[in-house]
Amino acid sequence: MLALAGIPLGLRCVFLDRGADAPAAQVAPILLGDLQDPRMLAELASHSDVLTFDWENISAAALAPLGKFAPIRPPPAALQASQDRLLEKALFRRLKIPVAPHAAVAGRRDLLAAIKRLGLPGVLKTRRLGYDGKGQYLLRRSADVDEACASVGAQESIYEKFLSYSMEISIVGARAVDGKCAAYPLSANHHWQGILRYGTAPHRNRRLQRLAELYLTRVMRNLRYVGVLAIEFFVVDGRLIANEMAPRVHNSGHWTIEGCVTSQFENHLRAICGLPLGSTRALGHTAMINFLGRMPDRARLLAIDGLAFHDYGKEPRPGRKLGHCTILKARAKDRDQALKNALNSITWS
Amino acid sequence: MLALAGIPLGLRCVFLDRGADAPAAQVAPILLGDLQDPRMLAELASHSDVLTFDWENISAAALAPLGKFAPIRPPPAALQASQDRLLEKALFRRLKIPVAPHAAVAGRRDLLAAIKRLGLPGVLKTRRLGYDGKGQYLLRRSADVDEACASVGAQESIYEKFLSYSMEISIVGARAVDGKCAAYPLSANHHWQGILRYGTAPHRNRRLQRLAELYLTRVMRNLRYVGVLAIEFFVVDGRLIANEMAPRVHNSGHWTIEGCVTSQFENHLRAICGLPLGSTRALGHTAMINFLGRMPDRARLLAIDGLAFHDYGKEPRPGRKLGHCTILKARAKDRDQALKNALNSITWS
Repeated sequence: MLALAGIPLGLRCVFLDRGADAPAAQVAPILLGDLQDPRMLAELASHSDVLTFDWENISAAALAPLGKFAPIRPPPAALQASQDRLLEKALFRRLKIPVAPHAAVAGRRDLLAAIKRLGLPGVLKTRRLGYDGKGQYLLRRSADVDEACASVGAQESIYEKFLSYSMEISIVGARAVDGKCAAYPLSANHHWQGILRYGTAPHRNRRLQRLAELYLTRVMRNLRYVGVLAIEFFVVDGRLIANEMAPRVHNSGHWTIEGCVTSQFENHLRAICGLPLGSTRALGHTAMINFLGRMPDRARLLAIDGLAFHDYGKEPRPGRKLGHCTILKARAKDRDQALKNALNSITWS
Repeated sequence: MLALAGIPLGLRCVFLDRGADAPAAQVAPILLGDLQDPRMLAELASHSDVLTFDWENISAAALAPLGKFAPIRPPPAALQASQDRLLEKALFRRLKIPVAPHAAVAGRRDLLAAIKRLGLPGVLKTRRLGYDGKGQYLLRRSADVDEACASVGAQESIYEKFLSYSMEISIVGARAVDGKCAAYPLSANHHWQGILRYGTAPHRNRRLQRLAELYLTRVMRNLRYVGVLAIEFFVVDGRLIANEMAPRVHNSGHWTIEGCVTSQFENHLRAICGLPLGSTRALGHTAMINFLGRMPDRARLLAIDGLAFHDYGKEPRPGRKLGHCTILKARAKDRDQALKNALNSITWS
């Protein structure tokens, strides 16, 4: 989707990926290799005027030396913070952005101490390399401690008090080289088994929108960020509790392709290439539904008025994000009805 | 733009073009060869589930035999009618769609007779292979006859009474395999030296919209059309006079990429692939400006709020369409102001 956004702008992307079946290979030249391999990263840099990433589990240490060949945007510091839940929460706290009560956990003893201090229920999460609900365990009772330790393993972890939240929302925005910031309207996200199933946007709540924009720009300014950044929040008693951030174009911002004047993908490219940001104005009411594990019936979905289809061209595999669709309507009521119809045509596996 | 619209739908395009620098080659496999070459066309057909074209000056005769390998959509009959101004006008007249008074001209004598019958001013146009104002000569006085004949040459031509029109508008629409039709809102087109410079859409005039849709669907139904069709009209004393049709995605429909729920490119692909048509609803007020001869300053244009940029990646050449931009605004007034600003940043050559 980044490459597709770049083509009309006259920007050419080249990708480094582990598999020749990477979606990007359909539309752009691709270098095949390991994302941690300094030699491959240097080759990528040699082809590039600017370097970026759309996956946060790459090695910030391997990236850092490339800064002398081409600017790395967003900055590796943002990547590092997002790779470690403890550093991420420390950043949020330093910037006075509320987070859930939490404690670092290095083993069973720490976990018991954390539960004693913070109470139950709570979630044990690996500090690094967790995504889409992987590397997480929800503890309801003290008796869950053994299974939690076994499940999450010996890795450095974090125990986080489970907050009873009314919903999860996220904000996506961008910061340009000249420091100008732009934020999209909030998206309300619906997860199941830790994976985003669908979202609706704009989630209209002026107060929360203002607050989320304030937090987002605070993080972007502090990190001298360039590019698109997403932050997920829990809404707890009308307050925003930052859950995590993603220093990249984000699944909860896919709706902006059809739903906003300028998409998150185009704005990421505009930002990292030193171009002015485009308008983040919403064009109506949207719903975005992920295709997980299997592709739905295309013709049946395309019969839904206002629906746009995105097939990433990936091999089906249980739980894998293979594509998504976006519904764009003038009225929220029509969007909700079409969302319902679309959900009836989609099976997740 | 067709290939880019196909990728998210999971549709893969392969192109036949004369030059390796064809814009499509940036995003899709391309066969290099002459568009009239039956061998190359047969090779294209062997790679394809369905065949289409985005240029109407290809040989309908060379295309026709390929129908046994894959469906040709739109039908070659539409291509043939659009290739010959006399056949085209005959089709419009048969379908009771008003056209300018005209006469076939095979030489100087015919031209004099036509002028006598239809009067001056008038336009002498070649019947075939004219586009962007090429192969046309405007006669104001009898003394222009010699220069007109010399300019248009010995080709079969048509003399058309010059109508004093208040504006030129066009309608773009699509017909699906199942016969369902959809039309976009009208575009108001501004030409200079025969080439479309810019357009604004939707041109809101309910009566003209209804009339144009009526004519468009009449042509599509009559030809058992599948795909996108455009018809250009002159507005003369509040009536629509059909000027010409284009059996393909059309320059005056480029605004639909950002300006409508589903673009003309996506709807063309949906139609020819037997998929349901998408919504042609407009998302606001747009202006589309062609980049002719030279590319404008990208950063300067991108600073205009609501502007989307399209660089076709073509070699600059005087008069060549190298790209376009679209401005999308919620209010017509803001669109008009932004259009003015954009026009100040664009030089045509």
